[in-house]
Amino acid sequence: MADKAQLQESIKAQGEVVRKLKEAKASKDQIGEEVAKLLELKAQLGTDDGKQMFVLKTPKGTRDYNPKQMAIRESVFNTIISCFKRHGAETIDTPVFELKETLTGKYGEDSKLIYDLKDQGGELLSLRYDLTVPFARYLAMNKISNIKRYHIAKVYRRDNPAMTKGRYREFYQCDFDIAGQYDPMIPDAECIKVVHEILTELQLGDFRIKVNDRRILDGMFAVCGVPDDKFRTICSTVDKLDKASWEEVKNEMVGEKGLAPEAADRIGEYVRMHGGFDLAEKLLQDPQLSQNKHALEGLTDMKDFFKYLELFKITDKVIFDLSLARGLDYYTGVIYEAILIQPLNVHASEELGSVGSVAGGGRYDGLVGMFDPKGRKVPCVGVSVGIERVFSILEQKAEASEEKIRTTETQVLVASAQKNLLEERLKLTSELWDAGIKAEVLYKKNPKLLSQLQHCEETGIPLVAIIGEQELKERVVKLRNVATREEVDVSRVTLVEEIKKRSIQL
Amino acid sequence: MADKAQLQESIKAQGEVVRKLKEAKASKDQIGEEVAKLLELKAQLGTDDGKQMFVLKTPKGTRDYNPKQMAIRESVFNTIISCFKRHGAETIDTPVFELKETLTGKYGEDSKLIYDLKDQGGELLSLRYDLTVPFARYLAMNKISNIKRYHIAKVYRRDNPAMTKGRYREFYQCDFDIAGQYDPMIPDAECIKVVHEILTELQLGDFRIKVNDRRILDGMFAVCGVPDDKFRTICSTVDKLDKASWEEVKNEMVGEKGLAPEAADRIGEYVRMHGGFDLAEKLLQDPQLSQNKHALEGLTDMKDFFKYLELFKITDKVIFDLSLARGLDYYTGVIYEAILIQPLNVHASEELGSVGSVAGGGRYDGLVGMFDPKGRKVPCVGVSVGIERVFSILEQKAEASEEKIRTTETQVLVASAQKNLLEERLKLTSELWDAGIKAEVLYKKNPKLLSQLQHCEETGIPLVAIIGEQELKERVVKLRNVATREEVDVSRVTLVEEIKKRSIQL
Repeated sequence: MADKAQLQESIKAQGEVVRKLKEAKASKDQIGEEVAKLLELKAQLGTDDGKQMFVLKTPKGTRDYNPKQMAIRESVFNTIISCFKRHGAETIDTPVFELKETLTGKYGEDSKLIYDLKDQGGELLSLRYDLTVPFARYLAMNKISNIKRYHIAKVYRRDNPAMTKGRYREFYQCDFDIAGQYDPMIPDAECIKVVHEILTELQLGDFRIKVNDRRILDGMFAVCGVPDDKFRTICSTVDKLDKASWEEVKNEMVGEKGLAPEAADRIGEYVRMHGGFDLAEKLLQDPQLSQNKHALEGLTDMKDFFKYLELFKITDKVIFDLSLARGLDYYTGVIYEAILIQPLNVHASEELGSVGSVAGGGRYDGLVGMFDPKGRKVPCVGVSVGIERVFSILEQKAEASEEKIRTTETQVLVASAQKNLLEERLKLTSELWDAGIKAEVLYKKNPKLLSQLQHCEETGIPLVAIIGEQELKERVVKLRNVATREEVDVSRVTLVEEIKKRSIQL
Repeated sequence: MADKAQLQESIKAQGEVVRKLKEAKASKDQIGEEVAKLLELKAQLGTDDGKQMFVLKTPKGTRDYNPKQMAIRESVFNTIISCFKRHGAETIDTPVFELKETLTGKYGEDSKLIYDLKDQGGELLSLRYDLTVPFARYLAMNKISNIKRYHIAKVYRRDNPAMTKGRYREFYQCDFDIAGQYDPMIPDAECIKVVHEILTELQLGDFRIKVNDRRILDGMFAVCGVPDDKFRTICSTVDKLDKASWEEVKNEMVGEKGLAPEAADRIGEYVRMHGGFDLAEKLLQDPQLSQNKHALEGLTDMKDFFKYLELFKITDKVIFDLSLARGLDYYTGVIYEAILIQPLNVHASEELGSVGSVAGGGRYDGLVGMFDPKGRKVPCVGVSVGIERVFSILEQKAEASEEKIRTTETQVLVASAQKNLLEERLKLTSELWDAGIKAEVLYKKNPKLLSQLQHCEETGIPLVAIIGEQELKERVVKLRNVATREEVDVSRVTLVEEIKKRSIQL
């Protein structure tokens, strides 16, 4: 059993990693990740009888949300949904899985990351990879030619998880899309406005929204001498520029993808360019680029785009960046990506520097047609806000601040200092529920007053309604303010009113 | 190709079924179901080149939610969540899939309905079958010994779908559970109170909540002469009494499961009994049942249970019913199930008569211990509200009523009757967004006023802010009430205020 000895060594080493992280007070996420690795190693070891040990964990790349995390999530969703509704969007929902063939041929090189379901007889199914393809399928299936909708739901990618950076295998997308035949760039500009509003309201620190256009990229590739059939694959390589250096990207173009070095160098000159309306004007003067039909269209539209963004007063955050490419196959026009810069200075600030992209999207005019039996096209443009990275930041922010997050909304605890009053407590609690008051009662026959008050302090319940023999006789309740410890007798008749009044003040 | 001819016959026949349903103006769901069958047959036929035809559909037993359905769903969720919060619950979330072994051995005969994911390397995963087992896993994993939590999420069962009855393969569960060591039956009674409040507020018509106790069932089986090792399987058979006759159930007990006919007959006498507090008292006088330790405990607790329900003023809807068994393996104490009776009289009333169970649950004191490495127990009791059946009813109710459901919340459309004012419209719209007003603008350079007004009528937007050269010069906006067609000039300075004021009135 040399393998076993080796495994035990690994477990020991990994145990050491976890211990050191805990000593160094590393972030919960980071510790959690290393603990997960440790558990996996232990599971490989198994028990003495050779049976695999049962591992108490969530699947790789996924996590539970505890009540505090849910409170943060709820507030983020409220901000995002309010914005989507402010822009007149309705909402839809689709199943978590689709027929496998619905997803086939939509994601290019990323298709290998799709989760398939086991063939248990019947249809072949896959978990949704994004919300865009199901949306396009929905439009085609229901013959809808215009709609503005949002959809907030979980999507699934068998990617290499990096949970400390908020990269999970199960994660939320918050999508806002506008489908319909409209005048150019107007809905496109609204999508950028939506991203701008959301990132501003979430207060995550400063951000930029990079924009480009697939037509400009295609034109650029053409004038640089990239063969037509290499556009998509070279596009995927350019997309890596946010993580890799130009040298690395060039090597991939020339070495792996067989592009001529001169072509790569010419691309290199373009992708260094960024600016705004002026850059679009300048490129329209470029004698070669302006001769290319696609580039000409893209650049002309880009000027309108910036004109609309100017009306929305958001050009200070928007950069026309020729290196932005986006990985997905289905984009046909404008593309964009929002990144956080100078993130909030919380305890793991260096790590946060790499939080990067928090929203992205673009125009995809051909996707719905891929589903329509008659190839009928529905032009679409949309944006997807990636919430997990936002959660990571807000969670760390919440941890760093001393502020206590309440996870319930209970207004009052019904309590007693005396024995044998369970029934009276239940009766009063029930009366409060029926009057719409958020109330709790301890599930003990004779709880101590102290433990009842402690429950309030721990969970942030602001009021206690105390009853005893005397109060029952006088048809009153002693209403106690947990924070000030003030107590007043309130008639049973006016109790509900009194609690409502105090809940507004608190 | 005899098979092909046969298939074509089936397609023709199924086409006929769809046509007749449409003629008979059957419900959308019912037609949808038959259309789905038709599409599947057509897919089997394939195209002439032998390639399977691409089918534009959602997977079997699933559905999309369109904006109107989402509006209904949102209002149902609001009612349910308000109730859960009124009872002091916090919320958690868990991944949509779990390690396969987490679900193993928890569901008895129903385990065959679990969706497995394909083995793509790495862990073996399954889609969650309910929210109870993930909750127990969460408690054990995080060593939580008391919590009151709700969880609203989709679960997955490869069951035979009956979409007209609201039975889907992907469906929502709304769970409310109380974990912790408390005095008997107090949290159990609160669960019934929660169900009572929700079903009352949803206004689905009259309902009853059947209750029983696994310990009483076990005692009953023992005194009837059922061998110990047959308790669970006989329990599953008794559970069918809501759909099958006593004769059928008896046949299964005796024929399939090998029970002595006399034992079955004795069970038959018990399962006919129902009542309330009095029945518990009566059964405590039963010389045999009262000798059984489990039955004695269950019946004594049942009396307390009814005492608490009395304090909550809900005994009129609760029936102690000895035929209630519940299918799942993990229950250990009280069990319950809510059914709708005399459902609302909408157009498909007969169909609705079979809507049946809309909530169920019970006590499961052993489940968390199954996950804890040291077998440490955490007593739990909870209830799950099945929302799809409720949706079905409310959707049909909405269809039957003429009332129009709004799917957006837009307060105002920014419009113009004149040409070349796109930029001015965008600028004003952006100002309104920034002031928190829900505003829309048509994405056309020069839309007709009529089509702008039509958009308002179709989507229920109550106000139009109209601008023209004159208004721009005078720094005013013509604010039009869509319903009354009244128009007034409002200064740009007070426009936001004016819209807010009118939105409250409308």
